[in-house]
Amino acid sequence: MVYNSGEKVRKACRNKSLTKQTSGLAPGFVQANLVILPKDWAWDFIVFAQRNPKPCPILEVGELGDYTTKFLAKSADIRTDLPKYRVFKNGKMEDEVTDLINLWQDDYIYFLIGCSFSFEEALLYSGLEIRHITQNRNVPMYKTNIICSAAGRFKETPMVVSMRPFKTTDVIKAVTITREFPGVHGAPVHIGNPEIIGIEDINRPDWGDSVTIDKDEVPLFWACGVTPQMAATVAAPPIMITHSPGHMFVGDLKNYEFKI
Amino acid sequence: MVYNSGEKVRKACRNKSLTKQTSGLAPGFVQANLVILPKDWAWDFIVFAQRNPKPCPILEVGELGDYTTKFLAKSADIRTDLPKYRVFKNGKMEDEVTDLINLWQDDYIYFLIGCSFSFEEALLYSGLEIRHITQNRNVPMYKTNIICSAAGRFKETPMVVSMRPFKTTDVIKAVTITREFPGVHGAPVHIGNPEIIGIEDINRPDWGDSVTIDKDEVPLFWACGVTPQMAATVAAPPIMITHSPGHMFVGDLKNYEFKI
Repeated sequence: MVYNSGEKVRKACRNKSLTKQTSGLAPGFVQANLVILPKDWAWDFIVFAQRNPKPCPILEVGELGDYTTKFLAKSADIRTDLPKYRVFKNGKMEDEVTDLINLWQDDYIYFLIGCSFSFEEALLYSGLEIRHITQNRNVPMYKTNIICSAAGRFKETPMVVSMRPFKTTDVIKAVTITREFPGVHGAPVHIGNPEIIGIEDINRPDWGDSVTIDKDEVPLFWACGVTPQMAATVAAPPIMITHSPGHMFVGDLKNYEFKI
Repeated sequence: MVYNSGEKVRKACRNKSLTKQTSGLAPGFVQANLVILPKDWAWDFIVFAQRNPKPCPILEVGELGDYTTKFLAKSADIRTDLPKYRVFKNGKMEDEVTDLINLWQDDYIYFLIGCSFSFEEALLYSGLEIRHITQNRNVPMYKTNIICSAAGRFKETPMVVSMRPFKTTDVIKAVTITREFPGVHGAPVHIGNPEIIGIEDINRPDWGDSVTIDKDEVPLFWACGVTPQMAATVAAPPIMITHSPGHMFVGDLKNYEFKI
């Protein structure tokens, strides 16, 4: 199933006909990670994002208590328009839900954060294969030893990365294309040996699915919007709600609007 | 006088031997606009900046009450290390001072914002002439009819732009070079006819000095870090302190570290 607009994806989420991951859905339209925090925690988080723009490029911030979007989409409802959400309490994932109707509070502020699905399209258009799309899996994501800068109660936190393998001859192409999208993670943070960034087993990702890496291929690692979930396990705010990994917000803006 | 490090510029500011504008000083080192606000206003401002990244690309945010920097420079003192500051009360410029020793408060938060002086260097290195540097003047800045998105008490505000004239044959070069520096305003927001963006008389800038535009030249306009001062006259916070236009913070990082 492919939807031909962000609005149709959001409508399918709203009526619960779509609860699975969104990679490859609504080609052309921007996808975003979601973080919701109470006002008391919003300042620390936005400064954490400012200090760590590779994993946390903020694309939109809501007004206090407001669950409707203005910029990435006109009047999307953050409470219902994603396929799946995760609820963290005191840093622990407590629940996975398909809407936030009964959970939304007046003191919540939402953040929409750039997602690598946006640059995947540019890679595909340039003739590169994206393995997890070919294999119909969720992108593999890993905790690393790359440390994000602290901000207030968000202490130093391991960066989460997503991985895509490419032939050695295509590595430069993948780097030069993705660097043109700094608002959706930009260029990779690491190329090659996974051990250098603290990944022990490339076949056992911490989130998402494992994908095949052929012998003539090199793994490329990009900063990932799941990093705030990692930061939340360390900072342990009383409540924090996010998208489920791979289950993104889909907007009305086009990916190419995020190209510099 | 040219200083060969950001640290030397800051030291000269601290001992009051430097109180003039900083364009062309300490070649290679990043320069930044300054905004200081009380905590109560910091959230609205950081969201305003997020929604208007062309005029307000935030490079560093301080911790509550902290006047020392960590990222752009190691342990610079925001209260003393700029040549000149402007103090706005209720949206009106009330004073211009050379340090903030007696003005700093425990509830202040500082923001350092990308400055077009950073990309000027890349323009110079590519062989282009920058008129206001040649003429030893401050860059001309103008209020426009381009409207910045609102955020909280920071209402919709006219964007301030800086202007540099180039020969028609050099316009593309100037655009492609500056777009590679999205953290320091990036590509121009307008090229050519000043009236289209609401500038009535190109020879009468609202800030800085007028510069010569030759007959075979076109004015190029970049989003400018003086925009927050414009926003402050509208939002009218009880107190807001900024750099004086052209009198910037000079860091330890190099301009080229802001190239994507």
